[in-house]
Amino acid sequence: MPTLNRQIRLRARPDGIPQAEHFEMAEAPLEPLTAGQFRVRNDYLSVDPAMRGWVSAVGNYSTPVGLGEVMRSFAAGEVVESRHPDYPVGERVMGLFGWQRYAVSDGRSVIRKVREHDLPLSASLGILGLNGITAYLGLTEIGQPKAGETVVVSTAAGSVGAAVGQIAKLLGCRTVGITGGPEKVDLCRAEFGYDAALDYKAESDLSAAVAAACPDGVHVYFDNTAGAVSDAVHPHLAIGARVVVCGTASIASWDPPPVGPRVERHILVKRARMQGFLFFDHAAKFDAAVARLADWLRAGKLRHREDILDGIEQAPGAIAGLYRGENLGKRLIRLTDA
Amino acid sequence: MPTLNRQIRLRARPDGIPQAEHFEMAEAPLEPLTAGQFRVRNDYLSVDPAMRGWVSAVGNYSTPVGLGEVMRSFAAGEVVESRHPDYPVGERVMGLFGWQRYAVSDGRSVIRKVREHDLPLSASLGILGLNGITAYLGLTEIGQPKAGETVVVSTAAGSVGAAVGQIAKLLGCRTVGITGGPEKVDLCRAEFGYDAALDYKAESDLSAAVAAACPDGVHVYFDNTAGAVSDAVHPHLAIGARVVVCGTASIASWDPPPVGPRVERHILVKRARMQGFLFFDHAAKFDAAVARLADWLRAGKLRHREDILDGIEQAPGAIAGLYRGENLGKRLIRLTDA
Repeated sequence: MPTLNRQIRLRARPDGIPQAEHFEMAEAPLEPLTAGQFRVRNDYLSVDPAMRGWVSAVGNYSTPVGLGEVMRSFAAGEVVESRHPDYPVGERVMGLFGWQRYAVSDGRSVIRKVREHDLPLSASLGILGLNGITAYLGLTEIGQPKAGETVVVSTAAGSVGAAVGQIAKLLGCRTVGITGGPEKVDLCRAEFGYDAALDYKAESDLSAAVAAACPDGVHVYFDNTAGAVSDAVHPHLAIGARVVVCGTASIASWDPPPVGPRVERHILVKRARMQGFLFFDHAAKFDAAVARLADWLRAGKLRHREDILDGIEQAPGAIAGLYRGENLGKRLIRLTDA
Repeated sequence: MPTLNRQIRLRARPDGIPQAEHFEMAEAPLEPLTAGQFRVRNDYLSVDPAMRGWVSAVGNYSTPVGLGEVMRSFAAGEVVESRHPDYPVGERVMGLFGWQRYAVSDGRSVIRKVREHDLPLSASLGILGLNGITAYLGLTEIGQPKAGETVVVSTAAGSVGAAVGQIAKLLGCRTVGITGGPEKVDLCRAEFGYDAALDYKAESDLSAAVAAACPDGVHVYFDNTAGAVSDAVHPHLAIGARVVVCGTASIASWDPPPVGPRVERHILVKRARMQGFLFFDHAAKFDAAVARLADWLRAGKLRHREDILDGIEQAPGAIAGLYRGENLGKRLIRLTDA
């Protein structure tokens, strides 16, 4: 066991999307465990769009990460030292362990024990973690698609979006993905099985393109972006449509609040429902969701991509890269050295 | 039985709120009934904000009224001639009979038979009609308030709003009304029992006033306005809030779509639900809603006001008057001459 723990801490609070300079690398001594604690060696750190919100001082669903604190993040690893009976050495866990090589936990920061030993540990942070669970539960609990309905997905080639599109297809829906650039459009069609894929960067009239791709209207809109993409979808909602508000990736800052076309008329005329989905509200259903996702994965019915960066020093700039769209798949930091 | 039927027909399609000049008065002969038809003598014609949408060419939840056609409206009256076994002479009915003294129906335009013979027929168009039913079902089916929660209502002194506020109070909620002008604020407090009433015309910072009036946040927002009033409410939604989108009275025109602060962040962070309510979707629950409303009315627990104009010639200008806020109560046209 080494004696030092490499960490990425928040150095300055960003105004908008966090950049590399808002973080700093540090080393901290490994403190001895007290009773009820265990130590996790993180093998993968997660990089997620939601992390922008975790460092924002604007009202949010969690306390902002404090200056000088280890950056909050999902991570997956193995228990390497334990004084907790439920987490013996060798147990694989996924949880909010932060951007650091070693984390101490009393169990409360654990989200799941990772028992799918036939599947790679990295999957527990993507298709079997935040992304896959969000896609499955957001779609089924809030979107409630019925076979034959049309499901539209924004950031359709992203880690959540690609899973939503495939799950909707597995549930018998027609799927339309909206993404940016020809490479991602190809990925949507060839790899993720969308019935139609639209390039918001290339379409001169995205609203007309959505209308053409959805002749029966949009029954479920899984919204990861807000902004101009959503403005093009809302007018084409079907009667009784459900909009899953899962992310707002296209909005760089909410302070001051950005303006856009008002949505109330669409919601009223279509008797539509627009509802927010937050992963942490649905913890009771995580294991059931992972079981279903893992079965699809084993059967080869669910494809996913990982975008793995090596070394903790890659973490500070990795969130900004997500917002630039430079990744093709779930972005992870792999840690291998001490 | 007279031989002529006085009618108000749509003459020109308004761009925005319909004014008197968009209508014309006409007389049509009373045609003989065919088998399965009956004739209703309308004693009250309804004037509702939703009628703006019924004459709009912009996409809507019903086919627009055609030029030269009798203006679509709710009305209440009595069957005066019948060749339909279910609608004998003397039966009182409420339905979509149009702005005219006599209407021919085969039953499909009937919304309810009015059997509350101890209560005035005019109530079947207000507190026991569109307004009361909308308030009760919109609040209970979409808003789903729990005792102890805070319910905020826009157009709080209006025919729907005043009913929502009182029903929420009867269900054990804390109620906050938003209305315009000191007279309506007084009405909210003294007559409709709101715990707090805010004057959007007088408040220099309506958002701060909403925050102060709702220290636990807004659990249910019954939205009859959209626009600036809603912009002041959305930031104060509680976790898990429900927004009932029932009307958009503050928006004069949706073509081109008006802009305002984007709502997605509030919906996501608060895991709120925003859903449209349309009266006609809930026909199966009308009788149960009226039964409950009528009981409250008989027990003196539900107050309502009527703003009655005499004579069909008042109808053409009556919608615009609603949007100017000149009425204090449910606006009706009473017909008494032949």
